[in-house]
Parts: sequence; structure tokens; C-alpha cells
Amino acid sequence: MIVESVGQGVTEFKEGDHVLTVFTGECMQCRQCTSGKSNVCEVLGLERRGVMHSDQKTRFSINGKPIYHYCAVSSFSEYTVVHSGCAVKVSPLAPLEKICLLSCGVAAGLGAAWNVADICEGSTVVIFGLGTLGLSVAQGAKLRGASRIIGVDTNPEKGEIAKAFGITEFLDPNDSNEPIQQVIKHITGGGADYSFECIGDTGMITTALQSCCDGWGLTVTLGVPKEKPEVTAHYGLFLNGRTLKGSLFGGWKPKSDLPSLVEKYMKKEIQIDEFITHNIPFEDINKAFNLMRAGRCLRCVIHMPNAKATLVKE
Amino acid sequence: MIVESVGQGVTEFKEGDHVLTVFTGECMQCRQCTSGKSNVCEVLGLERRGVMHSDQKTRFSINGKPIYHYCAVSSFSEYTVVHSGCAVKVSPLAPLEKICLLSCGVAAGLGAAWNVADICEGSTVVIFGLGTLGLSVAQGAKLRGASRIIGVDTNPEKGEIAKAFGITEFLDPNDSNEPIQQVIKHITGGGADYSFECIGDTGMITTALQSCCDGWGLTVTLGVPKEKPEVTAHYGLFLNGRTLKGSLFGGWKPKSDLPSLVEKYMKKEIQIDEFITHNIPFEDINKAFNLMRAGRCLRCVIHMPNAKATLVKE
Repeated sequence: MIVESVGQGVTEFKEGDHVLTVFTGECMQCRQCTSGKSNVCEVLGLERRGVMHSDQKTRFSINGKPIYHYCAVSSFSEYTVVHSGCAVKVSPLAPLEKICLLSCGVAAGLGAAWNVADICEGSTVVIFGLGTLGLSVAQGAKLRGASRIIGVDTNPEKGEIAKAFGITEFLDPNDSNEPIQQVIKHITGGGADYSFECIGDTGMITTALQSCCDGWGLTVTLGVPKEKPEVTAHYGLFLNGRTLKGSLFGGWKPKSDLPSLVEKYMKKEIQIDEFITHNIPFEDINKAFNLMRAGRCLRCVIHMPNAKATLVKE
Repeated sequence: MIVESVGQGVTEFKEGDHVLTVFTGECMQCRQCTSGKSNVCEVLGLERRGVMHSDQKTRFSINGKPIYHYCAVSSFSEYTVVHSGCAVKVSPLAPLEKICLLSCGVAAGLGAAWNVADICEGSTVVIFGLGTLGLSVAQGAKLRGASRIIGVDTNPEKGEIAKAFGITEFLDPNDSNEPIQQVIKHITGGGADYSFECIGDTGMITTALQSCCDGWGLTVTLGVPKEKPEVTAHYGLFLNGRTLKGSLFGGWKPKSDLPSLVEKYMKKEIQIDEFITHNIPFEDINKAFNLMRAGRCLRCVIHMPNAKATLVKE
């Protein structure tokens, strides 16, 4: 997105700057931001409900009726208003229509593999759900030198696609009468070193915990469940040395960390283009939603050639 | 315990050696033991059911009827048979009637603080349940330089006792109308850095997770629940950066690590004696059980002056 204007007190951006806008921000001042060990900003994190922090009001309206902000960025709009803490200045040489994928899925997956799990070379990884999130975890695991990256998805078409992102073995749970966690325990000699839940299904978090090994097995949960928000697991899984760890945006502090990911992309150290299966003009946005619901895409980039933002500190 | 004899193939022990026997062993050969990062031995871990590994039979009987081994050590007996992988040679100068506490609770608590949580200096710790396990976590936290160590117990008498082990603040959940996790979030400005469940109550694991902070809050579960084996927690707790980690025997590899704890005790770097509230002869063992059930003791040491063991590799 291009900066159209800045509000009072915003000094780090100016008109014409290229920015990525992110659903979770970095105020740089709260307990979380100043800790140096968290990206769960207390001011610009997930708790906001469609309004600006300062006055709890929206900056959009139509015929006097308020339109609420969406995920802080309100990016389904050609002109938007975003808190400057949710914007990241990037090089004007970086193609926005590609690096926009770093604002969520691709960065979240890489971060889960690198920051949250901190995958070791030679390890065995199992990934539940091979959408952009899961395949980004796979990419992260591959770049860390994981020796086995097992992908699990009920869509058999994902098997072939997933190889391009580092998946070494594909499992469709429907192919076996045995529960998938048993299959994984069997082929890995006791369970994977790391398992990732990238579906958004709390039941699958339990399966992921059961699929990793005693002693040091680590399960990272990335998905946001649509239903049943409670995670349930037998205490014995923990007693035997497993860990369950959550991840918001892969642990990246957006303003501090995203520029380094953009740089990695520019140096061709990470793949982004390969996740873009569709480029769709703004007026056809519903096609993109349909593709997503049908599981027929990885990422659809919505094109708004003149999309601009006003960055405010409010 | 003193070694009375050794079985075939046992070369590391001889008659007269002083040993600690431990409920979980170290075979030194399985995937877990050789990993260097786990103490959940696949051969001599918790999975055994009162019998020896080699032939799935017991070494005790009475009038021809089998008596099963108990927790690998069968230590409520003046003569016992133990797998050599569950025995640890210790200095004959170390008083067995004190260091026996390192075979479970005290070591488990210290290890949870040091190995599993790896508590940082200056951090805030909350401990649910102030028995020997919880107070050992407190001791470990204090030795790591934690600045606030909040102890939670429904027995108000524990408040005073707990101070001797490092607890800086005591909370009795019955003293407040607010749920205890809210009280803790309030007094810590958002939650503790670390929380420990030392009761053996899966519901309390959820409370412990809710009592630690977003971003980096870590909950360690040590207790073994008597009922309701399922841990349940809202996925949002993980999404916001919390981690739930289990612990068996505080992550200590018994044979490799216990000698260093004995040494620390001998150098007065850790407290053990203070946990021994009662010394009881073997014939009064039921008094010890009654004290334990009534919550009127920390540790009762059962004295069997001539307790001896045969160590076998079977």
C-alpha cells in the first residue's frame, strides 16, 4: 500500500512511502512490546474491535452510518485509515503485490517454524493442514534443514503441490483405517519432533500433540478455530514431556521484524510468488472468497492499483 | 538404600554401595536416553506395570502368590529388587535418610524450575499447591533469583511454612470472591511469567495457564491428577503466546543428574532437611499415610535402618 497522508504525530512515514499493513501492531511502549520477547502488543493487538484506540470510534462511514475497521488494516478498500503502529515501511523496490503475503500467512508460517518452534536441523516435522500457513511452515522447516517434513491434508490434490514447498511425505487421513496419529507414530518410530496445527480445529491440536514424541515433542498451534474453542488433551501427554505452544503471527514483531523478511524475499532466500495461485481485480473479490471456501487456491491477491492509506497515531 | 547384592551383568554397583532408587530409570540405550534431551526412558519409564522388563514377571511373592513391584523401587520393604537402571550410586557420606527426598518430590520441583521452566532472574512465579513439590519449585525459583514467588493454597497454615522456602506472597483462593486467576492477573499487572501446577488437578492447570501472562507466559504441570485426566483450555490462551509444558521428575535423568543434586545438598546449596516434618519407623507407616492425607506433613521419612537392595539387569 502507498501512504497517501499521515496524521498528527506520525513522523516515521511520509506521503508516497510503501508500507505493509498488518492485523496486529507494535506500539513499542506496552509491557509486551518493551519486553523484547513478545509480539502480542497490548495496545494494537487482537483485542481491538473495529475502532481506533484513542477514541474507540471508526474512521469510516457511509451516509452517516459507521463502517468498522477490519483486522486493523481494512484492506478491502482503495483508501483506508490505519494506525501507524500497524504499518511497516518497506523498500519501494519490493513488489507490493507479492510481499503483501508477508502481512499474514507466509510470515506466520515461517515464524512458527523459526521463532516459535525453532526447528533443528535433521528433525522430523509433521504439519496438519496444507494451506498457505502449513506450506509456509514446511518452507521454514526445509530452510532449517529438517530431514522429514510430513504433510497431512484430507485434500489429495495437496500432495503434489506441497512438494514444491518442502513436504517430503504426504498423508491423507482417509487413506488409512488407523487414526492418523498412530500412522505418524508408526512411521516416525514414536512420533515427530515437532507438529503444527494449521487448520483451525481444536480437535486437531490434540491429534497434533499425540503425533509428536515423548520427551521433547513440541506442538505449535497456528490456526484460529471456527468452532469449539476449547483445546482438550490427556495430561499424560504433557507428563511424558510434550509441550503445547501458541503462536500469533509466528512470533514476529511486525515493525521490527518484517523488513528482514522482505529483504530475504528480495534476495530469493524465501519463496512467496509460488503461493499466489490467483490474481483477481477488486471488483471480482467474491470470486476469491469462493475459491478460498472451495479450497481451490492458496493465495488470491486482490488488485487495487491505486490503493492508498492514511496512517494515524490515534 | 544399601546394595546387598547384584545380579548378572551388573558391573556399575557392588555390595555395600549406597544408592538412591528412583521410580523412573535410565537405560542409556533407547531413543529417549540417547537423545540427550529427555528423561522419559522408553525401557524403564512409567509404562512398567509392577513387573521386570525382561520377563514381565515380579521378583516378590508371598506363599507362592506374586507381589508386584511398586513404582520400580518397591521401597516399602526392607529387602527389595530393583533394576540397576533405576538406581543411582551416591557418596557414602551423604545421609540416605535425608537425600532419599531427591528420589522424587524435591528433585522434581527443583528440576521443574530449572530444567523445564528455566526461570530467569527477576521474574514473577506463581505456584499452585504448596506441598513438597510446590515448595521445591519455590526453592528453585528463589535460587534462580525470581523477584516474586506467589504461593497459592487453600490451607491457610501453608502461608507461614512457605516463606522458609522462598514464597514471597501467599494467596488463599477462599479469601477472595474473585477467581484466583483474576487476583493474580491484577497483582502482577497482567499475569506471572511462570506458573506451576503442583496439585494434581487438571482444572487447576487451566487456572495456571490463565494466571500467566500473554506473550511469554509458561505453565509447567507437575501434578498427577487423581481424576479427570483431560486438560481443557481455551485456544486463545495459546494464540496469545502462552506455553503449556509437562514435566516428569523435573526433567532430570536420574543416573546422569542426581549425583550433582546430592553434591549441592552436601555443599548446603539446596535445602532438603526442612521438608522432613516427620521421621517414622516402618511399623508405623500408616501414621505417615494418615498425616499425608490430612495435609499435616510435608515429607515423612520412613525409617528402615537395614534396608537393602538387590540390583539386577533384567
